[in-house]
This record gives sequence, structure tokens and C-alpha cells, in this order.
Amino acid sequence: MADSSAPTRVMMAVNESSLKRYPHPSISCRAAFDWTLSKLIRSNTGGFHLLFLHVQVPDEDGFDDMDSIYASPEDFHKMKQRDKIRGLHLLEYFVNQCHQLGIKCEAWIRQGDPKEVICSEVKRVHPDLLVVGSRGLGPFQR
Amino acid sequence: MADSSAPTRVMMAVNESSLKRYPHPSISCRAAFDWTLSKLIRSNTGGFHLLFLHVQVPDEDGFDDMDSIYASPEDFHKMKQRDKIRGLHLLEYFVNQCHQLGIKCEAWIRQGDPKEVICSEVKRVHPDLLVVGSRGLGPFQR
Repeated sequence: MADSSAPTRVMMAVNESSLKRYPHPSISCRAAFDWTLSKLIRSNTGGFHLLFLHVQVPDEDGFDDMDSIYASPEDFHKMKQRDKIRGLHLLEYFVNQCHQLGIKCEAWIRQGDPKEVICSEVKRVHPDLLVVGSRGLGPFQR
Repeated sequence: MADSSAPTRVMMAVNESSLKRYPHPSISCRAAFDWTLSKLIRSNTGGFHLLFLHVQVPDEDGFDDMDSIYASPEDFHKMKQRDKIRGLHLLEYFVNQCHQLGIKCEAWIRQGDPKEVICSEVKRVHPDLLVVGSRGLGPFQR
């Protein structure tokens, strides 16, 4: 079998750690990344292309920002910018890892409900494979 | 990344063609097999191990055997043997393909409801990955 065909495009949904927060990836998405490297890509780094999607959930109740004071529209803009930068740092973690391993990748951020956004991005991007973490729920619950 | 770790074990559920019947594989499971070769295994034939499971559904209404006459327990035994042989011919198709490509594989037959048997076999065998055909339903229905 020659390996001259287009690389296999694997989309991965990644999120932040619920304990350590940004820029740290969650345990389950880092496990999913390690699984992708060791079980899918293996030594064939040139045959795969990784697509990292990070979905940011809009902070509805503002719980994380209880100590912040918003006095102007500019304050909200700053908060949104800060969230975006944190998301970028998360993606940077994975892009750096891929770069070191010689695996081509892309990464981007979307806002919304993770389940809905992941499904709509899969329809838009048409990856060959979607990998998501199991969140400790085992193989039959997601 | 060295590729010295244990091979990635991919379990595939395969079934017969609803049009051409045994020993022909269904269009969707052959597509799933082709996808596995071109998108997962690629050129890394030594890094993967394929596990083919064929689930035979017990023929409850005996519709396929309306022209048969059962006069003794031996007749039923013969029918079961014949079904088993047909299933083996289906698996032979995939095992032959793997042999030609130099991919290690195993294949076996189970009886029962495909959905239940596939789940129980996944729990028993613990593959790294399960690949099933889409039956033309698209990626979000199974």
C-alpha cells in the first residue's frame, strides 16, 4: 500500500482542565491526544493532519468573574479578549506538541454549546475521524 | 516516535450483502474496511491488527428456508452447519485481503442481536478502536 494519498484528517475537541484551568488541557483530552499519537498516528507522522477545535462556553452566570467590576463596554470587551487569549494558550500547547513531533496541524476556537458546535464543525470541516475525550465515563457514554 | 509498541487493535463488525448474500460482504462493511485501510492503517501495515467479528442473526421465521424440508434433528443440524460455513466464507474474504496486504488479523463468528453482541465483544476483547459500517445513514445515525 503506497501512502501517497491525502493525509488522514483527525479532528480533536480539546478543553481546559477543570482543576488547573487555562492554559492546561483537561486530563481526558490530553489522554485522547496521547491515544491519537500512540494508537492512530504511531510512527506515520506524515500521514496524518490534526485539527484542534476548542469550544468556549459563554460564561452565563459570570461566576468566574465575580471579583471583576464592569464599568464600561470596554471592560466586557477586555474580558472577552482575555478569554480568547486563554483559549489560544490551550491550543498553543497542542500545536507545540505537534510541531515537535513533525505532525501538521490546525487549531481554532468557537463559542457555544460544545456538543452542538462539535457536530456543526464536523459537518463543515468533514474530518476523516473525530476524537473526543471520554471524561472518565468509559467507552459507552459520552 | 518509535513504533515499537503493541499494534493498534481495530475491531470491525462485518456482515453479508443484503442483495448478493453470502459470501459477499455488504457495501457498507466493505466501505468501512477500505476506509480502515486507506485512512487508519495507510502504509503502516505492521502497526495494526484487525479483528473481524461477524454476527449471525438466528433466522427466527425461517423465511430463507421456506423451501427446505426438515424431517429430523439432523436436518436442523445441517442447516446450522451450512449457515456457519457461509459465515466463514464471508470472513475468508477479509482474511484473504489482509493476508495479501501483510496485515495481521483474526476473525470469528457469534450468534445473536448484532448491536448487543458487538457491545459485549468490545467489552470482552478490548480493541483500541471499533469500526462499523454506516449502512448509508450518514455519520450521525447508527
